[in-house]
Amino acid sequence: MKTMYDVFSSAKEIFTMLISKLLGERLKENPSEASLVSHRFLLRGGYVRQVTNGIYTLLPPAMRIAANIERIIREEMDGIGGQEVLFPVVLPAGLWMESGRYDRVGSELMRMKDRSGRDMLLGMTHEEAAVQLARTEATSHSQYPFMIYQIQTKFRDEPRSRGGLIRVREFTMKDAYSFHTTQEDLERYYSEVFDAYHRIFARVGLPQVVSVGSDTGMMGGKIAHEYMLLSDAGEDSIMLCPSCGYKANMDVAVAAIVHGEDPERELEEIHTPGVRDIASLATFCGVGEEKLMKAAVFAVQGQTRPLIVFIRGDLQVNESKLRRIAGADVTPWASGNDSGLKLGFVGAFGLDAASVEVLYDESLKGEKNLIGGTNREDWHVKGFSMPRELPGAAFADIAKVNDRSCCRQCGGELRLQRGIEVGNIFQLGSRYTESMNMTYADMDGKRKNPVMGCYGIGIGRLIACLIEASHDEYGPIWPLSTAPWQIHICLLNKDHEAVGKTGYDLYERLKARYEVILDDREAAAGIQFADADLLGVPVRIVVSRRNLEKGELEISTRDKKIRMQVPIADMEDRIAALIGNGRIGFHA
Amino acid sequence: MKTMYDVFSSAKEIFTMLISKLLGERLKENPSEASLVSHRFLLRGGYVRQVTNGIYTLLPPAMRIAANIERIIREEMDGIGGQEVLFPVVLPAGLWMESGRYDRVGSELMRMKDRSGRDMLLGMTHEEAAVQLARTEATSHSQYPFMIYQIQTKFRDEPRSRGGLIRVREFTMKDAYSFHTTQEDLERYYSEVFDAYHRIFARVGLPQVVSVGSDTGMMGGKIAHEYMLLSDAGEDSIMLCPSCGYKANMDVAVAAIVHGEDPERELEEIHTPGVRDIASLATFCGVGEEKLMKAAVFAVQGQTRPLIVFIRGDLQVNESKLRRIAGADVTPWASGNDSGLKLGFVGAFGLDAASVEVLYDESLKGEKNLIGGTNREDWHVKGFSMPRELPGAAFADIAKVNDRSCCRQCGGELRLQRGIEVGNIFQLGSRYTESMNMTYADMDGKRKNPVMGCYGIGIGRLIACLIEASHDEYGPIWPLSTAPWQIHICLLNKDHEAVGKTGYDLYERLKARYEVILDDREAAAGIQFADADLLGVPVRIVVSRRNLEKGELEISTRDKKIRMQVPIADMEDRIAALIGNGRIGFHA
Repeated sequence: MKTMYDVFSSAKEIFTMLISKLLGERLKENPSEASLVSHRFLLRGGYVRQVTNGIYTLLPPAMRIAANIERIIREEMDGIGGQEVLFPVVLPAGLWMESGRYDRVGSELMRMKDRSGRDMLLGMTHEEAAVQLARTEATSHSQYPFMIYQIQTKFRDEPRSRGGLIRVREFTMKDAYSFHTTQEDLERYYSEVFDAYHRIFARVGLPQVVSVGSDTGMMGGKIAHEYMLLSDAGEDSIMLCPSCGYKANMDVAVAAIVHGEDPERELEEIHTPGVRDIASLATFCGVGEEKLMKAAVFAVQGQTRPLIVFIRGDLQVNESKLRRIAGADVTPWASGNDSGLKLGFVGAFGLDAASVEVLYDESLKGEKNLIGGTNREDWHVKGFSMPRELPGAAFADIAKVNDRSCCRQCGGELRLQRGIEVGNIFQLGSRYTESMNMTYADMDGKRKNPVMGCYGIGIGRLIACLIEASHDEYGPIWPLSTAPWQIHICLLNKDHEAVGKTGYDLYERLKARYEVILDDREAAAGIQFADADLLGVPVRIVVSRRNLEKGELEISTRDKKIRMQVPIADMEDRIAALIGNGRIGFHA
Repeated sequence: MKTMYDVFSSAKEIFTMLISKLLGERLKENPSEASLVSHRFLLRGGYVRQVTNGIYTLLPPAMRIAANIERIIREEMDGIGGQEVLFPVVLPAGLWMESGRYDRVGSELMRMKDRSGRDMLLGMTHEEAAVQLARTEATSHSQYPFMIYQIQTKFRDEPRSRGGLIRVREFTMKDAYSFHTTQEDLERYYSEVFDAYHRIFARVGLPQVVSVGSDTGMMGGKIAHEYMLLSDAGEDSIMLCPSCGYKANMDVAVAAIVHGEDPERELEEIHTPGVRDIASLATFCGVGEEKLMKAAVFAVQGQTRPLIVFIRGDLQVNESKLRRIAGADVTPWASGNDSGLKLGFVGAFGLDAASVEVLYDESLKGEKNLIGGTNREDWHVKGFSMPRELPGAAFADIAKVNDRSCCRQCGGELRLQRGIEVGNIFQLGSRYTESMNMTYADMDGKRKNPVMGCYGIGIGRLIACLIEASHDEYGPIWPLSTAPWQIHICLLNKDHEAVGKTGYDLYERLKARYEVILDDREAAAGIQFADADLLGVPVRIVVSRRNLEKGELEISTRDKKIRMQVPIADMEDRIAALIGNGRIGFHA
């Protein structure tokens, strides 16, 4: 019989492993620092170890899962005409100055100086690098469209990394960039990527991932989608309509507004001593908050005048929406700032329009008989009619959508859910190609800016999501397509001659066709089974003295739905049937 | 017939490509910045583009070559029991402080601070990260030996990057770390890696790579080997003995010293006004330089006293050897420094031994009747006998070996050659495990420090070396095992119906079995062939009107050794025979 040492020295096949040699201790106890189930099992199963805050080393089982995920991603990216490239991790700051992001992005961008004092940075996304490359290589319309992608290390200096691989500072990401001559072609290709992403998530074992409309954030551009695993462990808020299927990130979700039916009344000032907030005003006036016209005051980055958002009293401002409209960062106006405004009594009535910027939320459109501020201490006004007092007002969607808001598509009831973002796609337009002066010669001979899309998937976070989506109290249940191994063999009492011989023979035979891990330790059955549960391999074979006496082996699946005794001679057929016919786990 | 656009939209197979869509312009002219042939062809073939000094983006053909190299490396690493992991690119400085390298390594180590002001660095090698991981995971002797490896981005802030991918600042590297309980086991495993490395270089297409004994440099440890592609483009100097096969990096090479046969003479001071250097002294005395005892004075980092190396006058000090002996950096003593030494007249005779450190090179061992300095201006001494004057002197090998020095192994004549280092392996011993306090429980229950080996291969440099080793005046000649594609189809006049139909049919059929690139452009034959030469694909098929009229296709090999007309029906058999039977290029 081979010893561990012989096998270590002579193993010639890829993707085989002995547990006695597998680096990464399995832990019996839940680590105190881990609250998410994926974080707990990643540590307990020996998948990852933290190097420092938000920075991890991946151990062999996690690397094997990552390799499976990357293979699927490459197939799907190549399948839609993608070409793999590799941009640098370390980029010259000048590239980001060209696009304007060097100043715009905060301290999550890791900045440094090289030995000659030049400003460098660690790429957290590679639009600039992609444009720099493409602007010298794709100068004629005949080369368009094309898509390039890479799978590479990114660094974002997150202020609060959390949850194991859910939110980290360093991570491996697939990022792709497509270039087009028209917006229409971008939209056509965007929908191909949209579909490819759904295929990727289904193939890696997360068919339940949903796509939702999303904010474009620091990327710029107008249209974007996120792919979400719905999970209470998520940090993102998503609005879903169970009736019509509408889905959107809270940052961009819209709702239908049920307007009041009040007739127009006379304007009338009312004395409201000390009534400075919406709740008090509603109580004071004996009306619901939807009868009030709320003023929310913001500071806009780079501007000195305050921005006032008027919105119906029962709604809140969605700062993500406001940020997009303002085209800059916004923060609530600090009461200590000098604005000339009577905070608590700010209103559209008697407002010195020259000293402020004003926006009206769509909730106010057509509303009559509102109660609002007068910009005078201790006075409000009632009977305020939008059509009468502000006939020229333009309205925008700035309101936060709440749980149970009304679906704008179907009138159904929107529901708030938490989700983990596993991918995102953006229509960037010409934001980068214009700022970085990338042009091609069109058929008419004119130089034009191409339009771009960009498309990301985080590999490590996907691994964590696979656990969040599929586990039991004992460990992860890996899908067959991305499992670190397909078959896990336990030898109970391996020094018993028949057990050892049968087990090692089986291992050698199965290695030729499957990825197999062998528990070759002298450990008790309980320890072997607990470790097998933590490694989450889809099919388990137990070789024991008792079963061998009956000429049998035990085969079971990690999801514990199948467990059977199989005559030794039938074992390989049973394995083939199991792994081939999709009966393992939730995905095969 | 499919249009380019259809194929871009519907391509479902991996590793296929149309030249019209391939990102990366081929250049007709040699770029002025490139002096090395590999640099020239990497730019001209659209393999790489510089992002900034020493930092490159890899384009699709280079990525495909890199993927082939990485696959071979993974197979060989897995074959000797390696387990793939992934350490972070960004490491906390604390890890390198533990090992002592944070202060010892200069500005090639990229240092930075994260958002909370903590010191971080970019990993240029990962001994510290490997020890940090292994010290919590391998605490029992039963887990040893084991080897972990990764393929990952490294950054070294090289002062002078050069030659395209030969010496860059950012690069992808395979680095491996093995851990053992005894030096004997490290040596056994080291020899397994030694062989695996030769297999890797042979399989990627560089069977001519030689291994040479080398310096351990910043790694520490005692035994190390480098793998060298002998090439005038290289920066390394290697001594080879054509007679016995002895090979070593100049930094560690040893030679046999032919000693003089002089009898002992009387010591006698001689007046040598103004004779301050070896050449003048030899002339003044009318003897060969081998009769002189030279003193070379050095400053040792961290020490105030000068270090004097006495060596035979016809030899030079090898500073790498001296650095190893001194255990610190050494630089020639600046003449302005206050040492109390009479530079030009320094000698072993009359030396104030308390104010200096002294080393004797082996070339002086047993020498009699030497002429040397007296530490007095304008005076030397002759008849200096090492056995008589310095009976207790200890000798070390500090001398530089020169072209045509005498081989210590066989007495043959050593030859100096230039080489490019494509890999290196080190026996590190317990340098890192001691400094970082990594221990395991041995069989006797005692805690012991494991011994380590580390093993590196740079992927990008290997790509450049493949070109240096195999090209003609038209471009690279890629080996079949690592070529970006195996088959390159040129369509001459693709709008001719038979040419287009035959070509696209062929492309679709061959794609199922091979990696195929199709030149689907309207370009003239000359342009297509020049581009094909730059892409260096092993087998080329030309579909032209003239050949089709005879029912034939043209098949040729990139090395231009084979070119033949083949009946269309026989084409696939011929391809299989060509690609299968190793007749392509220098390696198959």
